[in-house]
Amino acid sequence: MQQAEVRFIGVVHCDILRPEDAPAFYDASERAGVLEIFPEYRDGLAGIAVGQTITVLFWLHLADRSTLKVYPRGDRTKGLHGVFATRSPMRPNPIAVSELKVLTVDGCRLEVSGLDIINGTPVLDLKKRMKH
Amino acid sequence: MQQAEVRFIGVVHCDILRPEDAPAFYDASERAGVLEIFPEYRDGLAGIAVGQTITVLFWLHLADRSTLKVYPRGDRTKGLHGVFATRSPMRPNPIAVSELKVLTVDGCRLEVSGLDIINGTPVLDLKKRMKH
Repeated sequence: MQQAEVRFIGVVHCDILRPEDAPAFYDASERAGVLEIFPEYRDGLAGIAVGQTITVLFWLHLADRSTLKVYPRGDRTKGLHGVFATRSPMRPNPIAVSELKVLTVDGCRLEVSGLDIINGTPVLDLKKRMKH
Repeated sequence: MQQAEVRFIGVVHCDILRPEDAPAFYDASERAGVLEIFPEYRDGLAGIAVGQTITVLFWLHLADRSTLKVYPRGDRTKGLHGVFATRSPMRPNPIAVSELKVLTVDGCRLEVSGLDIINGTPVLDLKKRMKH
């Protein structure tokens, strides 16, 4: 088996509407929005509480999956880098890893801050954050 | 669209043979092994260098994807938690996020330390690590 299927567990709602409007990285972002988790996954949310910072995986549905070399953050002065040496959205599996702060929890809706992801992006996973 | 396809870009080779032998978390692990990246993705590795710590995403191919509540790390005294509040391998999309140190780079083979993943696990992605 050389592939597998990911299932979207939810979607982000926010006012970042175009990729070029997204903050470059989540730790430079104070943008808030809502993670809407689909009802069939609600039981998985038990234990997520306001004030926690959680790790969130998104599926970057607009990304080009065929590119293996990029100019990091569009800066051509630094030369081409392999996508695996960057955090470019362009990569064979366009999965973004963010650390987001939970502002409110209302059933299947988590209000979060720190977003660097555009409105409508599918959510793949939430995890307890590793301590650093 | 409520699903997407991930493509395995490589595989890990190490001496952790069973899930119960894996260290609980990568930051508690000094286990070394090799990430073999498939040749068609080699261009994506340009810029990864010895001594870097990189973020690596794995597809936990043995994980149960149907479970939404778990006893964290098998400890029943703490009660059941939603999988999204834990780092259990059991979750709808069994994607693990590790931070691994690059020990050597030889073409498509990266020797790394910090593994908490069993031999033969597919690799989904490598990324530049976020600074903390």
